[in-house]
Amino acid sequence: MSRVSVLISEVGPRDGLQNVSTVMPTEAKKAWIAAEAAAGVREVEVGSFVPAKLLPQLADTAEIVRYACTIPGLTVAVLVPNVRGAANAIEAGAHKLTLPLSVSETHSLRNLNRTHEQVIGEARCIADMIAELPRERRPHFEGSLSTAFGCTIEGRVPDATILRCAEQLMAAGCDEVGLSDTTGYADPAAVKRLIGLVRGVVGERALTGIHLHNTRGLGLANALAALEAGLDTLDASLGGLGGCPFAPGASGNIVTEDLVFMLDAMGIETGIDLDKLFAVRSIVAQALPSEPLYGFVTDAGLPLGYKTSPLQSELAA
Amino acid sequence: MSRVSVLISEVGPRDGLQNVSTVMPTEAKKAWIAAEAAAGVREVEVGSFVPAKLLPQLADTAEIVRYACTIPGLTVAVLVPNVRGAANAIEAGAHKLTLPLSVSETHSLRNLNRTHEQVIGEARCIADMIAELPRERRPHFEGSLSTAFGCTIEGRVPDATILRCAEQLMAAGCDEVGLSDTTGYADPAAVKRLIGLVRGVVGERALTGIHLHNTRGLGLANALAALEAGLDTLDASLGGLGGCPFAPGASGNIVTEDLVFMLDAMGIETGIDLDKLFAVRSIVAQALPSEPLYGFVTDAGLPLGYKTSPLQSELAA
Repeated sequence: MSRVSVLISEVGPRDGLQNVSTVMPTEAKKAWIAAEAAAGVREVEVGSFVPAKLLPQLADTAEIVRYACTIPGLTVAVLVPNVRGAANAIEAGAHKLTLPLSVSETHSLRNLNRTHEQVIGEARCIADMIAELPRERRPHFEGSLSTAFGCTIEGRVPDATILRCAEQLMAAGCDEVGLSDTTGYADPAAVKRLIGLVRGVVGERALTGIHLHNTRGLGLANALAALEAGLDTLDASLGGLGGCPFAPGASGNIVTEDLVFMLDAMGIETGIDLDKLFAVRSIVAQALPSEPLYGFVTDAGLPLGYKTSPLQSELAA
Repeated sequence: MSRVSVLISEVGPRDGLQNVSTVMPTEAKKAWIAAEAAAGVREVEVGSFVPAKLLPQLADTAEIVRYACTIPGLTVAVLVPNVRGAANAIEAGAHKLTLPLSVSETHSLRNLNRTHEQVIGEARCIADMIAELPRERRPHFEGSLSTAFGCTIEGRVPDATILRCAEQLMAAGCDEVGLSDTTGYADPAAVKRLIGLVRGVVGERALTGIHLHNTRGLGLANALAALEAGLDTLDASLGGLGGCPFAPGASGNIVTEDLVFMLDAMGIETGIDLDKLFAVRSIVAQALPSEPLYGFVTDAGLPLGYKTSPLQSELAA
């Protein structure tokens, strides 16, 4: 594999926490995000601008964004379900906004209470709002194609629908689209195939990232396939926290620690220090003592005599 | 991926059971093997010809081999640690003998109580014994390079040592060599790299299979890498039973159910019926009620509307 650098986007503070009934104290969230950044994580999805009554776990998102923006070099990403959320995200100073569009319209109605047309309309308004900002304040704006590999209500979604959604998001003014396996239905062949199809429609530079779940154990194999197909941004959640409460049985993001270990072992640069990353777990464990934290490599430990990839040591030196 | 057919070698009755303290009744083993064959599994490693006092769980291997040989179309594989075991395996009628050679000599001494030279000597004697048989009674003879991706005692083993072991096994008269990640240290890049190196020395046709563990969660990603590198035989264990008792912390074969699901979803032919395979778990669960059975896809269920790959349905029709 010729790729030497991959961006890990930590989504635990958003996708993880939205599936945890306990509300994590704001200070613990800040400590978590700061510790991941100190471990070398360069992008964190820190929250979601949804009404507090829907997701009280994320009610402090504005404060978290403002804090995270003070961490040098960190890209602060947030989920925004609509124009109002985007306005709040921009006000707080977020660097990257992600608007989910479920390619399954049934799921879209249940998850966001909106048709495809309505979501595309929101995307257009958000893009217009961003365009009115001074250039240096404009956040990056991604439309995320969720349930892209199938939906727990509708099953498989036709390619034509997915491609139409991708095209319309770009036409509405998104900077790029992302693929999201919300339901854990993806397999390596489907990952490569869909990346090829969507890139064929929107262009290579408008699809760089993927959000994978490990529901059926294929998470890391799918990540490998995505890298081989040319993507360079992978979402993951510390300790595998997370999932989607509106797609039953679809829990479990890929585990950041296992993903970074795989890449590091392969000699692919992530900029992340494994030992420091593993140590972040204690912050989450302490703040959410009743939540299980997953991770194969943290359970088994690093191989005997394991050395961080030479490239990484070199860059760190 | 152009490959359309992969051989799954079920190793649960050997690698799984040798790590379970309970002795599974002979009748349950027979039912397990017969049910896997009925599900479409074409090769099963049914036991190991080691002294019964070392592994009482596998003391009935000769009877199991004789039974399994009555199942039409099934390749009956066994592990043999030495000439004596090979003689017993041949007498029972096994179709395939695998002699493990740990490329870590320290591990070889602990696991088999033999130096590399001694194991190569055993390989030569076994090959000679096979050569004296009438052609139609000759089993296939594989030398398995265990701890190929690193050892829990020695750490990483030099390439030169691995390649020398491979060459010497072939020179001793093995039909082929196999790679074994006994310790769960492999990663997809290392898998591709080592396959290329070993094939460079022994030739493509003398390396077709790999034995992977999921200790650090990379099992299926490594399997994908092995397929991409051209191998077509993958070991796996039903419910993820198994591991190596002489390499602490190295437990956990890749789960047959998850592996077959991944391949099936990718449209790669295995000949295995997923629903029938899942049903085999109840036989193992009933015979070993205190042993945990793993499996992501069996926990989560198949995706909504999931259909076995078109190729498989076609062949089954």
